[in-house]
Amino acid sequence: MNTSIDGAAIVYCENAFNTPNGKTAHGLVRFTERYKIVAVIDSRWKGQDAGSIIDGIPNHIPVVDSLSEALALSAEQREMPKTFIVGLAPDGGRLPQSAMKTIKEALRNKMNVVSGLHDFLSENAELVGIARQNNCTLLDIRKPLERNKLHFFSGKIEQVKCKKIAILGTDSAVGKRTTAWLIVHGLQKEGFKTELIGTGQTAWLQGAKYSIVLDSLVNDFVSGEIENAVFEAWRNEKPDVLVLEGQGSLMNPAYPGGFELLAAGRPDFVVLQHAPKRLEYDGFPGYAIQPVDHQIRAIETISGIKVKAITINHEGMDKNEIKLECEKLHAETGLPTFDVLEYGAAELIDILKNELK
Amino acid sequence: MNTSIDGAAIVYCENAFNTPNGKTAHGLVRFTERYKIVAVIDSRWKGQDAGSIIDGIPNHIPVVDSLSEALALSAEQREMPKTFIVGLAPDGGRLPQSAMKTIKEALRNKMNVVSGLHDFLSENAELVGIARQNNCTLLDIRKPLERNKLHFFSGKIEQVKCKKIAILGTDSAVGKRTTAWLIVHGLQKEGFKTELIGTGQTAWLQGAKYSIVLDSLVNDFVSGEIENAVFEAWRNEKPDVLVLEGQGSLMNPAYPGGFELLAAGRPDFVVLQHAPKRLEYDGFPGYAIQPVDHQIRAIETISGIKVKAITINHEGMDKNEIKLECEKLHAETGLPTFDVLEYGAAELIDILKNELK
Repeated sequence: MNTSIDGAAIVYCENAFNTPNGKTAHGLVRFTERYKIVAVIDSRWKGQDAGSIIDGIPNHIPVVDSLSEALALSAEQREMPKTFIVGLAPDGGRLPQSAMKTIKEALRNKMNVVSGLHDFLSENAELVGIARQNNCTLLDIRKPLERNKLHFFSGKIEQVKCKKIAILGTDSAVGKRTTAWLIVHGLQKEGFKTELIGTGQTAWLQGAKYSIVLDSLVNDFVSGEIENAVFEAWRNEKPDVLVLEGQGSLMNPAYPGGFELLAAGRPDFVVLQHAPKRLEYDGFPGYAIQPVDHQIRAIETISGIKVKAITINHEGMDKNEIKLECEKLHAETGLPTFDVLEYGAAELIDILKNELK
Repeated sequence: MNTSIDGAAIVYCENAFNTPNGKTAHGLVRFTERYKIVAVIDSRWKGQDAGSIIDGIPNHIPVVDSLSEALALSAEQREMPKTFIVGLAPDGGRLPQSAMKTIKEALRNKMNVVSGLHDFLSENAELVGIARQNNCTLLDIRKPLERNKLHFFSGKIEQVKCKKIAILGTDSAVGKRTTAWLIVHGLQKEGFKTELIGTGQTAWLQGAKYSIVLDSLVNDFVSGEIENAVFEAWRNEKPDVLVLEGQGSLMNPAYPGGFELLAAGRPDFVVLQHAPKRLEYDGFPGYAIQPVDHQIRAIETISGIKVKAITINHEGMDKNEIKLECEKLHAETGLPTFDVLEYGAAELIDILKNELK
């Protein structure tokens, strides 16, 4: 497959692959329509297969020791990557100094550098100088647009006539985006013209054309930018369905999210992603995750919008626990419950098709 | 009274005084510990008393036709204001071109200009030039801090041992901040050491020392900045009570707010500000405001935190309707209900004192 819109890319993930700080890299090696990922850099895992490391299934993307090794490999395969992606997502999104050296090396190799960190590469004078000398670009996908390009909520969402599904979660980093893509592709396979409305940097990297980076938006524009992304996707693509990627979780102490998506995106219904074995909020030990039925009640009370299905993240489960856990959640909530990552989205899509009629 | 920390000031509110777009000016003429307001500019109300216009009670702040009239008046009273405050809060926060002329005139009169608009005066080269020539400053209170000065949520809120009350509302521009100050001053009078945690530009203008401007924060830092403001106020001031000013409203389509305050501020309870006669969200005709009992259920479901009292905004009511409306809300919700703007906060403070034990 070489149809990706921005071509071949190397992902930098030194010291972070297969850790929570490698989230961006994991998303990219699992799936992207924007790039063709040719190698991941993390010396700790050199010589291994990226897919095998994180999912136990080879995906033929090698993990290499260094940028020079990645470039040598690409030269062998006659596919020189034009893009270097900083695939780190450290807590706080700040750039480790150790990454700087490799970024400079990439620029000197005429590669465009893409970063989703909070520290903006394009504001570093030295990097800007090297990029200019080498005629390549520094793209900070978390850098907010200028204010005069941002939108306030206007109510134009009411004109959007297609169906809208929001994928919310009971925690952050719980699998909302992965489920959202599986639903998008499942619906497309069934003949529904479907687009993802991405709300994080990884969805953009994966190719979601109508994307905003919610957590780097100035708060006052959050509702308006969600509304605008949904509206533009509807107007330009004339889709049957829009799938809205949630961020954070409703009752998360650090990342309370999903409200704006419900308020401004006005979805027809919600699919809720949940990790049954996770007891405390990701990154915040001591903060217990509220039971799933409580979280469903919260979503429905706040928005009047119904949760129509649960999708689970099977972390911490044996394979034979998965079905039992789905049945248990079904019994507790009355909602159909699936593990779409393990078993695919076909059964869920059948349910959604009914809701979309 | 001349104890204000930043001295005498003129408030510019042309075409907007006594309208929702004059919200910032209204806050300032009602009360500020930071400035002494000597005049309001709005030619539509010239010659009248600012307090009489908005509250029916004279406060001896004249509304004048123009800046030159305001300055002439100040000269007469030998109190030359050093500050010119842009007291407009238009939807979207953008600066009307008509205001520009007066801002330049203020700078040429050696006045420092303070603005809470989204269009930053300090990024306008012409204004910066005039300010420099006249040795005065342009202060954009909505301009976000640099990222490296911002805080992520850490959980340190758990160390805060004083009581915390959040003032939420059923809409934006409904009177949350005014009620918050009345509660702060009422508790102070009863001997509780109390601080306001301001969350909007007006609270800062009014002198709230521990203030953030929520709607101009980058989304990822909202929880952490709330936590940090509460924590710093507690650590530095050793208060008995912190009163947290809410923004927007829980179910508002354009400004869904209050979640972060509940999640990261972790108040002990909520006081809910409500305008019984307001049927649609401020600025968004066609969007019906959910009934107050529904909104209370939403707050309590999402946070587990109880609403302990309702305070009403009596807009659209005859004076004799107020008591009836309070009784009606009390019957509907079981909660004590007061109009603190009309009748003062004493009765409410009695209730809060019990809760604070």
